[in-house]
Amino acid sequence: MELKVRTRNKNDVVDLTRQIAELVRQADLEQGLCHVYVPHATAAIIVNENDDPQIGQDLLTALDGLIPEGVWLHDKVDENGASHLKATILGPSETVPIRRGRLALGTWQAIMLVDFDGPRDRTAIVTLTRA
Amino acid sequence: MELKVRTRNKNDVVDLTRQIAELVRQADLEQGLCHVYVPHATAAIIVNENDDPQIGQDLLTALDGLIPEGVWLHDKVDENGASHLKATILGPSETVPIRRGRLALGTWQAIMLVDFDGPRDRTAIVTLTRA
Amino acid sequence: MELKVRTRNKNDVVDLTRQIAELVRQADLEQGLCHVYVPHATAAIIVNENDDPQIGQDLLTALDGLIPEGVWLHDKVDENGASHLKATILGPSETVPIRRGRLALGTWQAIMLVDFDGPRDRTAIVTLTRA
Repeated sequence: MELKVRTRNKNDVVDLTRQIAELVRQADLEQGLCHVYVPHATAAIIVNENDDPQIGQDLLTALDGLIPEGVWLHDKVDENGASHLKATILGPSETVPIRRGRLALGTWQAIMLVDFDGPRDRTAIVTLTRA
Repeated sequence: MELKVRTRNKNDVVDLTRQIAELVRQADLEQGLCHVYVPHATAAIIVNENDDPQIGQDLLTALDGLIPEGVWLHDKVDENGASHLKATILGPSETVPIRRGRLALGTWQAIMLVDFDGPRDRTAIVTLTRA
Repeated sequence: MELKVRTRNKNDVVDLTRQIAELVRQADLEQGLCHVYVPHATAAIIVNENDDPQIGQDLLTALDGLIPEGVWLHDKVDENGASHLKATILGPSETVPIRRGRLALGTWQAIMLVDFDGPRDRTAIVTLTRA
């Protein structure tokens, strides 16, 4: 199962929760795990709040401060060293439990794709396993 | 399977290893994975050393330095922007292998819940899958 | 399934992709997940680019800047507080989907062990689960 995601800015946060919840619903899996993965080296998957989308903006700002642009060895090969480092720190996947056939997300949790080298067409690979 | 965890400070680290090891023992699962997840947007699960609990304190200090309080857009909505960002960077889950019916933790590894917005009653959801 | 990894410097990045891909190939598992885990508190598993190995060097440099040596409570117990903190932030495992019997890594993704307290003999535990 794959989701196609279109990002709109160099740095962007896209909420995938609704689409992933729908895949889980269709799968009819009572209890297990839902793994969400980006096959990209300059994007990441996170789980946090999106009711206030400013948290995503704050995350991009925080990472910009910690990992500045333009000072990395890789920037001489491809000008996106900071994008790779931010993606590595957040990681390419998150795993969420499935209970009673639904994602066991907390009230304030959403599953989001973070792009650090957009705008691009990105893919998220969703894998469900039984517990 | 759910663990109830009471945190005692705004920032707190609670070792869950003994309780999770007991759940794994009871499950009688020879080989597989143990996934531990917090359904909270201002808490995280980590795996590291707790024989010296100062490592947990050092982690809280390090993250306080990297992600200061009070400077985030989300702080105008709810005064815990830094808590969300720290939780996002560490992530809401860890997955540990099960071998011969036991957690395959290294000698110096413990599974811990980190709260960035306590004191609170927190939950950890434990899922075991067969390999 | 375990891989033995010899690291060569205090801070080192070792690409495990080829060996893990071979384990997946031998397992003859059509669809599922591949979990890679280090049972060590001063090492981590990451997924990112290694076609330009300078990205690994950049990661070590970035983390050195964010988490300085010698200023942690744990340094009085064992002089590797920074190593524990870096390992905690990156985390001890990554999980990659398996599709058509192969790792569903993106073109620029590799699975790497990062040591922050080498040179040492390290172990990576690989677990495959069916989807």
